[in-house]
Amino acid sequence: YLSDYNFFVTAKEMDRNDADENSIDERYSRLTALENMGVVDDYSLIMKKTIFVIGVGGVGSVVVEMLTRCGVGKLIIVDFDIVELSNMNRMFYNMNHIGMYKTDACVDTLKLINPKINIEKYNINIVEDYSIFYNIFKTKKIDLLVSCVDNYSARSIISQVCNEFDLVWFESGISENAISGHIQFVIPGMTACYCCAPPLVNFESNFSEDKINSIVMNSENENNSKKLSSRTCAASLSTTTSVIAGILVNNILKYFLGFGENSNFLGYHMIDDYFPRYSIIPNKECIDKWCRLRQKEKEYNKNEKTKNKSPYKEEPSRSNVSNGELLENYSNFEVIESDIHMESSKNLLESLNNLSISELINKLDEVSSK
Amino acid sequence: YLSDYNFFVTAKEMDRNDADENSIDERYSRLTALENMGVVDDYSLIMKKTIFVIGVGGVGSVVVEMLTRCGVGKLIIVDFDIVELSNMNRMFYNMNHIGMYKTDACVDTLKLINPKINIEKYNINIVEDYSIFYNIFKTKKIDLLVSCVDNYSARSIISQVCNEFDLVWFESGISENAISGHIQFVIPGMTACYCCAPPLVNFESNFSEDKINSIVMNSENENNSKKLSSRTCAASLSTTTSVIAGILVNNILKYFLGFGENSNFLGYHMIDDYFPRYSIIPNKECIDKWCRLRQKEKEYNKNEKTKNKSPYKEEPSRSNVSNGELLENYSNFEVIESDIHMESSKNLLESLNNLSISELINKLDEVSSK
Repeated sequence: YLSDYNFFVTAKEMDRNDADENSIDERYSRLTALENMGVVDDYSLIMKKTIFVIGVGGVGSVVVEMLTRCGVGKLIIVDFDIVELSNMNRMFYNMNHIGMYKTDACVDTLKLINPKINIEKYNINIVEDYSIFYNIFKTKKIDLLVSCVDNYSARSIISQVCNEFDLVWFESGISENAISGHIQFVIPGMTACYCCAPPLVNFESNFSEDKINSIVMNSENENNSKKLSSRTCAASLSTTTSVIAGILVNNILKYFLGFGENSNFLGYHMIDDYFPRYSIIPNKECIDKWCRLRQKEKEYNKNEKTKNKSPYKEEPSRSNVSNGELLENYSNFEVIESDIHMESSKNLLESLNNLSISELINKLDEVSSK
Repeated sequence: YLSDYNFFVTAKEMDRNDADENSIDERYSRLTALENMGVVDDYSLIMKKTIFVIGVGGVGSVVVEMLTRCGVGKLIIVDFDIVELSNMNRMFYNMNHIGMYKTDACVDTLKLINPKINIEKYNINIVEDYSIFYNIFKTKKIDLLVSCVDNYSARSIISQVCNEFDLVWFESGISENAISGHIQFVIPGMTACYCCAPPLVNFESNFSEDKINSIVMNSENENNSKKLSSRTCAASLSTTTSVIAGILVNNILKYFLGFGENSNFLGYHMIDDYFPRYSIIPNKECIDKWCRLRQKEKEYNKNEKTKNKSPYKEEPSRSNVSNGELLENYSNFEVIESDIHMESSKNLLESLNNLSISELINKLDEVSSK
């Protein structure tokens, strides 16, 4: 039944500018220059990766454009929203897109940038159409997930499914007043997942029909409360979303191409051009059983590595998700010193209850700067 | 003769989505929300400003798009370059723009975002067509200049003309390997101009025909040396340019709307997500006489302010550039502590000789982090 939602874009006709190898070389000349300059060893690795982007609004639409221009192999995009006039204050969409599904507008725009883009789209709400969302993980090869959603319910589901499929992902967010944002890089079992910080989730058991129903209900409440306060709609700035998207995709490039250091958590506060950066280790008592399992796996592998002094190896993945290659890149990320130790900071955990995301980020900033 | 280069875009036909006040409200609802959230007092101030953007390449094209989406009153854009296939790795341009002047492609794209955009374009090289460039300052009301050029000669000319017309401006730059960039906020006489740091300029006297000729010659040398090394073309990444553009336009918003703090110099290093930030005070022996004059004026005004405890007032401007309003915003920027004191650091100045911009930035980082 996936075919109902699925739409492959294959530019059959060769563009005159893309007719031969030379023009492909020219298209990517400013990217492969990174090799000549000694920044990366093999830029073409990015052209073999499949990235799954959830949400193509303010941040997500800029992320998919950047990934297209950077030459990513394949994109899978998900959204259910429609382009409105009030979206013209953000990057990416234009007046011709008003009334279109955001996913359709993305496909059209990305084809104008690269007619050969390999892109697959789903017009679904991942909370309400959970089984379709889950099935994408089961049936597709995915190298990385990028979350650009704007609500707790979607983030909670993404976190849980990434833990289950042991998939590395990036979370991103912008504050309601548009003047700050953050990215978070999540390696299941090695860094805090979205459920390790209790106030961010509102369910207690693991994946089940009941849980999904509860999330859907909470999602409705969230939407209703948004409607009630619609007189004071959230602010947004193309500038803040682009800074977050740019930093996010640069961290994706570092991760896949094996250079530089990945930030675990990086914030941006436009008021004073402040960029807090720190690591958050996972909570051993995380309510997500998949998170706890991944923690034990990674701990076991780390011990094995230390014992045998052999290269870091993971046991064969139980899912279709190809994470063998990803493990090579784990060497670029190591949680050596942690500014925030969830497990041992019971008081901190308690103080985090009932906070909004922006309040939580401020709280984390406070703790980090102590 | 300006009319030869000048092209006004006036969308005569009303767009159906923009037909009434309600749709204008809707277009800007996510921006005016900044007022409801207490971030700014009066967002509409930005709609009265004219911003002069020099260069619409990697950074500049994203800057003009952001300014359009943020609702800036009027844009004046300058470039002489043509869109190529190798530009597809950067944001903004698409395949339909290949072969067009970048300024024309900008006008077309920005009209798709806001059909009522007030924009004026000049297809000129500001070094070779200096007198046309200079005439724009003499004949137009400009509230701010943004430099998004990629060479010393253009930056030197911009710095000198902004000092002469006492115009506040932002400088921006990306390293040749695409992995770092910076913005610099220049208030003539209050912060270091581009000529205060000697290695960045290669002429010694003030504005004269000779100087312009010398810059044009140096520009040719620069182009020749670029051609010689064209086998290793500069790298570029849409991500890094967008981060710099986003931070830059956020600083423009802070400056015009009177909130937050403006960074004097802010860098971005993608390798380790590092963002150095500091102030550079002007060099009292700057080779640019207009810079020295502005320093004395600002010093005089500061003393007057201290003496009379009266609001900061500047003497009437000698040019057509309206900088009366700008002065109100000076209160948002104060060089209180300076990490780098050009005047007193003779050794530092000597050590900066013959450095490229990226080397200079690294050097400044070193000094700043000491």
